[in-house]
Amino acid sequence: MRDDHMDIPTYDDMLAAEERIRPHIRRTPIRTSDYLNELTGAQLFFKCENFQEPGAFKVRGASNAVFGLDEEQAKLGVATHSSGNHASCLSYAAMRRGIPCNVVMPRTAPQAKKDTVRRYGGKITECEPSTSSREETFAKVQAETGGDFVHPYNDPRVIAGQGTCSKEFMEQTDGLDMVVAPIGGGGMISGTCLTLSTLAPETKVIAAEPEQADDAYRSFKAGHIIADDAPKTIADGLLVPLKDLTWHFVKNHVSDIYTASEEEIIDAMKLSWKHLRMVIEPSCAVPLAIILKNKDAFAGKRVGVVITGGNVDLDKLPWN
Amino acid sequence: MRDDHMDIPTYDDMLAAEERIRPHIRRTPIRTSDYLNELTGAQLFFKCENFQEPGAFKVRGASNAVFGLDEEQAKLGVATHSSGNHASCLSYAAMRRGIPCNVVMPRTAPQAKKDTVRRYGGKITECEPSTSSREETFAKVQAETGGDFVHPYNDPRVIAGQGTCSKEFMEQTDGLDMVVAPIGGGGMISGTCLTLSTLAPETKVIAAEPEQADDAYRSFKAGHIIADDAPKTIADGLLVPLKDLTWHFVKNHVSDIYTASEEEIIDAMKLSWKHLRMVIEPSCAVPLAIILKNKDAFAGKRVGVVITGGNVDLDKLPWN
Repeated sequence: MRDDHMDIPTYDDMLAAEERIRPHIRRTPIRTSDYLNELTGAQLFFKCENFQEPGAFKVRGASNAVFGLDEEQAKLGVATHSSGNHASCLSYAAMRRGIPCNVVMPRTAPQAKKDTVRRYGGKITECEPSTSSREETFAKVQAETGGDFVHPYNDPRVIAGQGTCSKEFMEQTDGLDMVVAPIGGGGMISGTCLTLSTLAPETKVIAAEPEQADDAYRSFKAGHIIADDAPKTIADGLLVPLKDLTWHFVKNHVSDIYTASEEEIIDAMKLSWKHLRMVIEPSCAVPLAIILKNKDAFAGKRVGVVITGGNVDLDKLPWN
Repeated sequence: MRDDHMDIPTYDDMLAAEERIRPHIRRTPIRTSDYLNELTGAQLFFKCENFQEPGAFKVRGASNAVFGLDEEQAKLGVATHSSGNHASCLSYAAMRRGIPCNVVMPRTAPQAKKDTVRRYGGKITECEPSTSSREETFAKVQAETGGDFVHPYNDPRVIAGQGTCSKEFMEQTDGLDMVVAPIGGGGMISGTCLTLSTLAPETKVIAAEPEQADDAYRSFKAGHIIADDAPKTIADGLLVPLKDLTWHFVKNHVSDIYTASEEEIIDAMKLSWKHLRMVIEPSCAVPLAIILKNKDAFAGKRVGVVITGGNVDLDKLPWN
């Protein structure tokens, strides 16, 4: 186990991550849509992290953690608890390095998610869908395997890795007035803050959150972390609460947080599929939803939108 | 009316088209998927023409025709008959030049297609869903408006425009062993042949066709054009027959034509949505379907696949 998980990552950590993960991730393209520009009055730039091989930006942070391990720790591999993109991206990165990856997942997680983790060689240990069972099971798995715990977002290596996305974004667009990303645990938003606060301090960082899981919004307004027990939203990548590291970045560098209803999220998702012709997750439709809802805040601006992932159950689309 | 519609377009026509349409189209990105490479044994490069603003490669040929008109003809605008991407792409190009676009469409065409044409300022005249009604209605519309007829594919300006796609494709990939594209009327395939026969004569051009609309396959084998009356396939962009200009290119430059069943097309479409995270039409899933079906022909090769379009009715997906 590393003992610096509570350290705030620095801009140099992000630069080191960029070098480290370059062979293992894609420099994803930027998309634009005249139609969505007209509709919003903003000049939108979409950074397509759904086009990473495992379909989500989380491959950046996961790869930074995996490829930063020393040889001794690498032999024991990595471990995490997640039922989402972090589990598959960590498995993917571990597979590329040829080291073990142990994932604790609720037995109720969708079969498709389990299949993806296994396709990338991750070993799943199932727990009951409760925090106590997850923690107990994870402690056991970690004790048995010695795998290095890579938290889905509250880990400086993960945040530094996610920060590489904004660096590419600024290089590919010649600058932006603001960057909008969804917020759940705050990994992507923290990485964005980390990079932009040094590289482009005039670029605002805006977080987009589902109304039905608006703990970050309420934390931001209250000035301290508020964690909800079990929020329910279609944006299933955004259910988790802020933690100390991500709260640090949200508190200090985020300009504003806006929220959107379930219906607004679904509408924005369908609009993206139709006009960007991309498969995107509900979670990453939240930025477009809040832009459409608060046009005055974005009109006339150069707005970067992080399309965080594209892993969707095609048999269960929310508009069918 | 131009009187050179029957002329075979040349490589120089394609180069002139490239210059002419550059401000009006996107240089679309290339995508790759480690997963699909493993599955097929080939090294696949996908050229994302679904990411053109109106969602299809046809904006290339349509823009070449529209922006090549002299001022006098431009005032009278353009006219066509089409219920698919050509209608919306021609309307889009005409809108960008600020000239009229008249489209004859069967009254039974999907509302979404009509909406798109109108969104781009195209004027629709409805006809009955029969060849005689279409021809009669179109003749009347053309006589009344004087619009220049831009055929969806059997027009040298259109073929030269479509040929610009392969030029970009070769530049973006540093060369390919073969390029696979779907074949309907043969506009994209002809443009591909036009460009590659000069630029990269060692690169094979392979056409992919639905089994249930395999008139190009049968024409290719027979050595003369065979046109079906009313083929039915989910690949609704590929229903039309070859014409003299496109047959010229198919006959002289296509290496092979493979076919796929409806089920194979739907499977390949879903696979593309899942692993490329892109919205693609059934028509442009046919290349992946034939590659999966004929692995030996493609294994170990650098294979370019033209993703021709992404305009899909999201409320009626073939796997739901």
